[in-house]
Amino acid sequence: MSDTGVTVKKNIDFSEWYVEVVLKAELADYAPVKGCMIIRPDAYAVWEKIQEVVNQKIKATGHRNTYFPMFIPETFLKQEAEHFEGFTPEVAWITQGGNTPLEEKLAVRPTSETIMYSMYSKWIRSWRDLPLKINQWCNIVRWETKATKLFLRTREFLWQEGHTAHATAEECETEVMWALNMYKDIIENTLAIPVLIGTKSESEKFAGALYTTAVESIMPDGKALQMGTSHNLGQHFAKVFDVKYIGEDKMDHFVWQSSWGITTRLIGAMIMIHGDDKGLIMPPKVAPTHVVIVPIPFKGQDTEAIAAKTQEIAEILKNKGLSVILDDRQEYTPGWKFNQWELKGIPIRIELGPRDLKNCQVVIVRRDTGQKTFVKETDILTTIETLLQDIQNNMLIKARNILQEKTTAVKSYDEFKQIVESKGGFIKVSWCRNPECEAKIKEETGATIRIIPFEKETPQTNCIYCGRTGKDTAYFARSY
Amino acid sequence: MSDTGVTVKKNIDFSEWYVEVVLKAELADYAPVKGCMIIRPDAYAVWEKIQEVVNQKIKATGHRNTYFPMFIPETFLKQEAEHFEGFTPEVAWITQGGNTPLEEKLAVRPTSETIMYSMYSKWIRSWRDLPLKINQWCNIVRWETKATKLFLRTREFLWQEGHTAHATAEECETEVMWALNMYKDIIENTLAIPVLIGTKSESEKFAGALYTTAVESIMPDGKALQMGTSHNLGQHFAKVFDVKYIGEDKMDHFVWQSSWGITTRLIGAMIMIHGDDKGLIMPPKVAPTHVVIVPIPFKGQDTEAIAAKTQEIAEILKNKGLSVILDDRQEYTPGWKFNQWELKGIPIRIELGPRDLKNCQVVIVRRDTGQKTFVKETDILTTIETLLQDIQNNMLIKARNILQEKTTAVKSYDEFKQIVESKGGFIKVSWCRNPECEAKIKEETGATIRIIPFEKETPQTNCIYCGRTGKDTAYFARSY
Repeated sequence: MSDTGVTVKKNIDFSEWYVEVVLKAELADYAPVKGCMIIRPDAYAVWEKIQEVVNQKIKATGHRNTYFPMFIPETFLKQEAEHFEGFTPEVAWITQGGNTPLEEKLAVRPTSETIMYSMYSKWIRSWRDLPLKINQWCNIVRWETKATKLFLRTREFLWQEGHTAHATAEECETEVMWALNMYKDIIENTLAIPVLIGTKSESEKFAGALYTTAVESIMPDGKALQMGTSHNLGQHFAKVFDVKYIGEDKMDHFVWQSSWGITTRLIGAMIMIHGDDKGLIMPPKVAPTHVVIVPIPFKGQDTEAIAAKTQEIAEILKNKGLSVILDDRQEYTPGWKFNQWELKGIPIRIELGPRDLKNCQVVIVRRDTGQKTFVKETDILTTIETLLQDIQNNMLIKARNILQEKTTAVKSYDEFKQIVESKGGFIKVSWCRNPECEAKIKEETGATIRIIPFEKETPQTNCIYCGRTGKDTAYFARSY
Repeated sequence: MSDTGVTVKKNIDFSEWYVEVVLKAELADYAPVKGCMIIRPDAYAVWEKIQEVVNQKIKATGHRNTYFPMFIPETFLKQEAEHFEGFTPEVAWITQGGNTPLEEKLAVRPTSETIMYSMYSKWIRSWRDLPLKINQWCNIVRWETKATKLFLRTREFLWQEGHTAHATAEECETEVMWALNMYKDIIENTLAIPVLIGTKSESEKFAGALYTTAVESIMPDGKALQMGTSHNLGQHFAKVFDVKYIGEDKMDHFVWQSSWGITTRLIGAMIMIHGDDKGLIMPPKVAPTHVVIVPIPFKGQDTEAIAAKTQEIAEILKNKGLSVILDDRQEYTPGWKFNQWELKGIPIRIELGPRDLKNCQVVIVRRDTGQKTFVKETDILTTIETLLQDIQNNMLIKARNILQEKTTAVKSYDEFKQIVESKGGFIKVSWCRNPECEAKIKEETGATIRIIPFEKETPQTNCIYCGRTGKDTAYFARSY
């Protein structure tokens, strides 16, 4: 199995384990262009499930999908100074069309605020046009200079970006929180990854935003991963791009804007959080295949009767909308097949051999725990349906316990430094809100503020760094 | 209405009519980047319906979606000479990442054969890996130098590209025809646009293909529009990118490949074919909204009872999965609303006024014919369901009749020239298969061979240009 199975243990060399799982489970591959990747069918199917859930939620709340060009004139990016400064070091530039040099070079979108809002300025006339709630699914390019990593950091990735315009600051704030909570819901209840939500500090916010909120979690190596952001842009971009509306008061007002996004990085988080030494474990709600059926033995005794029975079971499950693979290939042994489908993380395996046939039963094996059960033929469908829900729940609970273990509240900077170096994870502290303390901690430990939770804790202890009065609870961590 | 309604008649100035409908019905807008467009929500929703239907058909036949990078190294494009020559004049080039010039410039994909097949060469090992049937939905860039036109020709557009590899030439041919027929089915039965299918002549085939098949139709101005292509790539790319498999015979073989695609251009075709002087007419199967309900009067007498009843009807229709707008805005008159929703092409309008309320009825108006019917309240749902199917069918029949009128069989070159200049459309002729005749006809009339149908007609008459023995029936036309 060494050339097809995972050869590295997750808790021995996490980074190498991750790459092996991604490549061997055929989720992605390195592209011939440096820093880029190919999203292969099983991973793209997960992305399609995420799209389905997000689309359902955004459409139900009146957001609509669109498509804007990926080319952004340099002058547009430059209009919001902070935004330009934040993104230009990572922009890929088109300078030539056919054999002709372009008059103005064009950025491949690193994000679409500028091009979208130049149009909002034209489309929005009066309060009747508000709120404007638009979303797009597209590719994004950021010319990373840091080391890239499959799904987590690549020069091109896929995402969804919501961009809304509102009449009032309050409505805009509500939207920012709505998007953030939608992400939390989907990441926890679909991908089974528990998260923290909160705001970012000034130094970590989106370039051009009033403030940024985010969804974060801790990966098994103790590093934090940002998995979604929702920005309150205030009126910054509205003023730069002249996005105004005539109110019911007949006066001109600038709109209030939000933007929010999640990316294919979520697939990387899912792999890291749930996988084990055998490979991937897919949460049932995004699994491209729910059940694999393996007839045993694959040749010889009772072959035909077993083939007929497994086909019958496959049909019953498919008719209920489940995605099923019946692996009746003759050229592989059952053991080889078990390994392959475990590597690919299919939530449930059904085995059926001669003795099972005689006893009108099957063997059901769940991928998350490895637990085997004999199930009467008549109970297969209900067992599978319950089990898929159980697996989904169990994966979230397990991950939640791990997140809790990886979260440490500390009261001294010595303890802070010790935790950063040993177990990592979220380190919960009090902070005086002074950016200098934050910068010093980053410089000295590599840890940054990942999340400032919305609920304030009282009484606050003193700032972990300077010892002055603590104003915020902050979760620090080293991060991806 | 002049600033919101269509001011030009379709049969007076078709080109201007088209632009007005697209802009005023808010299907698209010009982007700030020359030659690019924004696909607005109502048009994007049509694209999503097309995606849904195509995905259903390709997944049911074992194709799987993926995502490949949009950057293609120049050396890759150069590997298949004909392919390179065909595409380079239209390639947008990335030459700079951040502040650093790239060592090798990167093409933004004009199509993905080269980057995909460089990976197929790695992924395909033996006959067990075949067929490989992969599809992707993505953006494509072709740096057009011709005048651009919303949906029909823009520098960036969206498409789907299927790329398959097969063990045998026969299997590959079957796939090419499968894709072509799938497109014909979707374009006719979902978009209600009748088409011809057939092969392209050598001079019109895809750069690098063995042969190209296509789906074409005639637009109301008499020009042909190519709406989908399916290419048999033979072993050209397999040989260049070394895509080989070990057969059951233990020998190495090159794979046989197909590629096929449809684009957002289909939305343009839908607008052109079905629209009228009032604006758009959406085929029910892709309409983002099926039914608009307008309460009459919008204020005064019986207002509350009418509001309650229209809401009740809206709920009944929504519960059946229909997309419904209840336009109860106070600030517009019913007449204004009728015009707006006709402009947007919503298939069915329901009106409900005080007299209707008293008589337990509604007025139902179909967009395609303008026909009004009084319908008993209890019959609304079944009437709407039948009517949507009727409208869909009627739109196809109407368009089919027009296509027939726009197809002329001619036997002399004089007649050919006269038809090209007068009514345009498909001109059906005999052709000797000599590329020189084809080139001369193009030079002298601007018409090219759009389709060579699969069924040969016998007896053939002589070649329309040179008078020698006719070998093929060919449909010529001027085209977009």
